[in-house]
Amino acid sequence: MIIVKVGGSLGIDYDAVCDDIAGLWKAGQKLILIHGGSAETNRIAELLGHPPKFVTSPSGYTSRFTDRETLEIFEMVYCGKQNKGIVERLQTRGVNAVGLSGLDGRIFEGKHKDSVRVVENGKTKVLRGDHTGTVEQVNTHLLELLLQNGYLPVLTPPGSSFEGVAVNVDGDRAAAAVAVAMRADALLLLSNVPGLLRDYPDESSLIANIPAAQVEDYLEFAKDRMKKKVLGAAEAVQGGVKRVIFGDARVTSPVTQAIKGRGTVVS
Amino acid sequence: MIIVKVGGSLGIDYDAVCDDIAGLWKAGQKLILIHGGSAETNRIAELLGHPPKFVTSPSGYTSRFTDRETLEIFEMVYCGKQNKGIVERLQTRGVNAVGLSGLDGRIFEGKHKDSVRVVENGKTKVLRGDHTGTVEQVNTHLLELLLQNGYLPVLTPPGSSFEGVAVNVDGDRAAAAVAVAMRADALLLLSNVPGLLRDYPDESSLIANIPAAQVEDYLEFAKDRMKKKVLGAAEAVQGGVKRVIFGDARVTSPVTQAIKGRGTVVS
Repeated sequence: MIIVKVGGSLGIDYDAVCDDIAGLWKAGQKLILIHGGSAETNRIAELLGHPPKFVTSPSGYTSRFTDRETLEIFEMVYCGKQNKGIVERLQTRGVNAVGLSGLDGRIFEGKHKDSVRVVENGKTKVLRGDHTGTVEQVNTHLLELLLQNGYLPVLTPPGSSFEGVAVNVDGDRAAAAVAVAMRADALLLLSNVPGLLRDYPDESSLIANIPAAQVEDYLEFAKDRMKKKVLGAAEAVQGGVKRVIFGDARVTSPVTQAIKGRGTVVS
Repeated sequence: MIIVKVGGSLGIDYDAVCDDIAGLWKAGQKLILIHGGSAETNRIAELLGHPPKFVTSPSGYTSRFTDRETLEIFEMVYCGKQNKGIVERLQTRGVNAVGLSGLDGRIFEGKHKDSVRVVENGKTKVLRGDHTGTVEQVNTHLLELLLQNGYLPVLTPPGSSFEGVAVNVDGDRAAAAVAVAMRADALLLLSNVPGLLRDYPDESSLIANIPAAQVEDYLEFAKDRMKKKVLGAAEAVQGGVKRVIFGDARVTSPVTQAIKGRGTVVS
């Protein structure tokens, strides 16, 4: 079993990803696909007159501030356009894909954080009305049910709070939680960079290998969205996943290449 | 087993619908919910600068012309905002709902009609590039799997063509196809009118009963979107569904009231 997370940044070739996944699936590889939709959400939010708001936590992590209106735009893009676009690509390639959010069947379940501490102009303050959360529990029952019956699950945020409220959860960390809960052999985190770079954005400074025990030491090299990937990788290996690979989603056969070790391998 | 279809027109109280469904589900009533999203799709399409286009067929049926861009907006609203909004309402009421489009697992499968004959200014012409289709096959396997495991399926268009391409299918007729395939006891078609009116929009002219064998004779009273409901009802009763009820989704306990026969009962 492998868990493949494909980001939602610009430059990602979803057709190449789905070509590759269809080939692997038909060859008998059990897998679950998790995707993002960040860039398109920003574009649609601008068009709808409710531009995205990003906040930075005191420890330096950047995340989307998700008020109710943003949550609904987020659902439109992640669960509507992106999820169904990927399911359609897989269906036209002969794979019986089933697209679900983490809210459906409470696949991603955890705590709802209504308020967030942010740093603005050097000052720390608290913002309320945030629809964000963490994934503490994965509904493996529903995922197993689908896999055992020949359906490829295509998952996306949001998740569900313990009370059933939709919460924006980080896709990379959700993928790590799924990998741990499903006892996956590998977690592939594919995005629009070749892997973790020692000297971002110099792509020749790729870090090829990270020993599992030292993954948190590499947080210092991670910029912006890569931080959550490194954090997700740490959570996955601590949870028993043997290999986590940060791979490039912009190449041909991106999933197969990542399985073969192209990118940054945490093991 | 009952199949409940709730329209996407203005005035529908989804909280009341979900309160009622949660009560019925917890009391042991097996059901599948199917919903629309038409009014919200029109609003979002206008905001995104791609206003909806409706066409009328030579036989007088009105439908949305669904080019690729419209299809994606349609997916955003139906599969994203509306579907996840309903799943969230059910989850917060303690029902483990799973939201799916007809594309997922090919729940609604049928022919893709790329071109449509339309009447414009009294002239018949052919428009190409339409992503529309019919439901000829229902994946009862996936629906049974979910129901048997305690999940309430919340379904929405689009469906899948036999080639796996997303196609806009009529929600009422899709609900009729599900009711027939699942051998449902009843199909409830709830919208923002009290039922079929002999003299639209005079709500006191409600037709209380229609004998199943004569349902097509009542097409003459159906205006606009009600035509598809009457057609769906005819398909359902011809397929063995014993009762079809056109009910009002704007009242308290709209599902229970329809089951009790409030509205227009075809039987």
